[in-house]
Amino acid sequence: MIEYRNLRVALLGGGSVGAQVARLLLEHRDELANRVGASLELVGILVRDLDAPRTVDLPRELFTTDADSLILGADIVIELMGGIEPARSYILEAINSGADVVTANKALLAQHGAELFEAADQVGAQLNYEAAVAGAIPIVRPLRDSLAGDTVNRILGIVNGTTNFILDRMDVAGDSLEDALATATDLGYAEADPTADIEGYDAAQKAALLASLAFHTNVPLEKVYREGITKVTPQQIESARKAGYVVKLLAICERLTDPETGEQGVSARVYPAMVHRGHPLAAVHGANNAVFVEAEAAGPLMFYGAGAGGVQTASAVLGDLVSVARRHVMGGPGYAASSHADLPVLDIGKVTTRYAVTLEVTDEPGVLATIAGVFSKNHVSLAQVEQSMTLEQPGTASHEPVSGTATLVIGTHEATEAALAATVNDLAANSVVTNVESVLRVEGV
Amino acid sequence: MIEYRNLRVALLGGGSVGAQVARLLLEHRDELANRVGASLELVGILVRDLDAPRTVDLPRELFTTDADSLILGADIVIELMGGIEPARSYILEAINSGADVVTANKALLAQHGAELFEAADQVGAQLNYEAAVAGAIPIVRPLRDSLAGDTVNRILGIVNGTTNFILDRMDVAGDSLEDALATATDLGYAEADPTADIEGYDAAQKAALLASLAFHTNVPLEKVYREGITKVTPQQIESARKAGYVVKLLAICERLTDPETGEQGVSARVYPAMVHRGHPLAAVHGANNAVFVEAEAAGPLMFYGAGAGGVQTASAVLGDLVSVARRHVMGGPGYAASSHADLPVLDIGKVTTRYAVTLEVTDEPGVLATIAGVFSKNHVSLAQVEQSMTLEQPGTASHEPVSGTATLVIGTHEATEAALAATVNDLAANSVVTNVESVLRVEGV
Repeated sequence: MIEYRNLRVALLGGGSVGAQVARLLLEHRDELANRVGASLELVGILVRDLDAPRTVDLPRELFTTDADSLILGADIVIELMGGIEPARSYILEAINSGADVVTANKALLAQHGAELFEAADQVGAQLNYEAAVAGAIPIVRPLRDSLAGDTVNRILGIVNGTTNFILDRMDVAGDSLEDALATATDLGYAEADPTADIEGYDAAQKAALLASLAFHTNVPLEKVYREGITKVTPQQIESARKAGYVVKLLAICERLTDPETGEQGVSARVYPAMVHRGHPLAAVHGANNAVFVEAEAAGPLMFYGAGAGGVQTASAVLGDLVSVARRHVMGGPGYAASSHADLPVLDIGKVTTRYAVTLEVTDEPGVLATIAGVFSKNHVSLAQVEQSMTLEQPGTASHEPVSGTATLVIGTHEATEAALAATVNDLAANSVVTNVESVLRVEGV
Repeated sequence: MIEYRNLRVALLGGGSVGAQVARLLLEHRDELANRVGASLELVGILVRDLDAPRTVDLPRELFTTDADSLILGADIVIELMGGIEPARSYILEAINSGADVVTANKALLAQHGAELFEAADQVGAQLNYEAAVAGAIPIVRPLRDSLAGDTVNRILGIVNGTTNFILDRMDVAGDSLEDALATATDLGYAEADPTADIEGYDAAQKAALLASLAFHTNVPLEKVYREGITKVTPQQIESARKAGYVVKLLAICERLTDPETGEQGVSARVYPAMVHRGHPLAAVHGANNAVFVEAEAAGPLMFYGAGAGGVQTASAVLGDLVSVARRHVMGGPGYAASSHADLPVLDIGKVTTRYAVTLEVTDEPGVLATIAGVFSKNHVSLAQVEQSMTLEQPGTASHEPVSGTATLVIGTHEATEAALAATVNDLAANSVVTNVESVLRVEGV
């Protein structure tokens, strides 16, 4: 028998992820000791209510409401409470008492990451967070370690399972947004208040973390442009399908050139976008997540799996725990947040992408030339134009077509958001345009 | 300006991967120094012929034929020569002189991995090999680190780009194996002697590495069961397509129970198998690679990207280099090959899977009952049976159907390879069976 050193592990939070982490720590004690070279002793689980029902049967004596005693007696603290406070204070307390930390708290890191990484760096503590982005999918470590010698140019991530489930239902089953959301809620994929998911706040937090990591630049949450999925219509989904595309809520992190200054910068943004059905991201169904990474040398890579779920996320937490514990025992390099590149985070107006614009126009000679002129004046060049008569009967569509109108679907080449916004303004003001029905970005090309 | 410590990096091999590694090391010198906390100085590139043409323009003075001087003067040695000797001796020399090692040499590791890892462990040297499996795709590090707290139950890998390209062409374009191979050769996806790829030797080496890593068990190459793709026919591909499947060459690593002793064991094997079109692996086209991992807690994960190519593979080499260099400077845990689980590697006969068996039988009453009886006697239970008249004209198919025969396609439930082999033997000997046309395993369910 090998005699192992004992590491005291404190767990903050006994919810669906915390309970699974505790179970796996207890069940796989011997195996984990083998992998770490030290045994991991779960010394306590901080909960608000000692008597609350738990999803997993755990020894009653592990639960405690005394945060300070638990944290100060630990070598490693795992924070799975969520929210900003008291999670932030507890992590700082752990770091300053000499403990290493593992967290899955994306909201906290997206808002206070710089402060926490700085505190960890000051004392040489480790702060790992694989579970904070895309649940079980290993993405933080591949970006940090595997691609450490490469240059990441772009990340397109499906990082919110709820919205992917909803958009997938709308695409596959033809559901309305409301029906798809109701199904998601019934199946436990959406919370009672789905705002954080469907308005893109959750994805924006993950975009901030991914961009910071990939570009060695501190990308604060408030610099992430964000649109949710609440304005996505069945008509947009249907029209995307006809054109060979699917609509996905994407977290996009991109290295780009400032069109005004010519300087290097980065962009982090979240919005629903059209993705070609031949793209690997188009095949990500249901509540699954996937992160598509384009690196200079490696080329395109994709990481796919479960983006949420208690036991799945627990896997990522335990992976971090093993790494942190190994270094706790044997020393070696920790990973401070790397922000040495310190690139400017560019405004959404400077982002360049392609667009699909659907217009309802008066059906008369010369309209196409007028429309083309509006795009041209704003330096947005057209890739393709499709015209179709509107076939809906009055009263059946959400917007009633005016008789004598036609629908134009216009695909553009790459243009800046600023140029496109100016174009859309001009189109809306033009007398031949009776309605700007839809503007969707096209990504992944 | 930060004054960095200098690390001396020796490169063994100046081929397509080596030249790209050298280029990236030189071009990204400052960025790499930032990430490592030490500057990486490329001190030399070992080549056989100083005057051979190179794919990348590199400083002439870096090339050398003096292996010993280069290796003995290095802090880190990157081995990209391929082959067994002298690569093995050079790596041992590097380890014993106190250097850390990065290699992409799958053949060497699959055959002599235990010896090399043992030697590294003895002196506390690091031996990293991300590029040895699936090229640019981060898979070694996710299995080793990200899933360190989880239990891997199964890996299904498309780890050979040449055979995936060939099978994809046969499926998508209806090519024969010969035509698809010729196209692969024309496009540079297949080597002049394609044996290592199409007979599955390359995939078997990767299966040995993946299984050893995932199961913490030394899985030697000779215990990997191997079948190549040379017997895959257009008829099999077509019949798989009709049933909603695609044929892929899979490297399979699986935790399983010995059907005789009831003890835990593992299996590593390579063969062409039918994969349902709904499975994420079915969407891996062309020469791409993907590794599908099923872990106890994380659930299904997939890692997708380029499996070969000079610059792509160089990305993985550089990621290893940065990790190794950081630890070279700051100390900390290295990664000896972890074989503490030491599970028995089970023979192919003990593997359980599902099968699709295509038979040509005499078309007379009672045949189906006879056939079903043969399966039943061997304890292989049937999932579905489909009968179709053979429609080919004599002379047009590779096997000429005898008039008065029918074709039966039989899908089985899970059965051991041994039971299936016995069944096939009995079928071949049965007078109602005029030909056993095809036996394909069905994986990914």
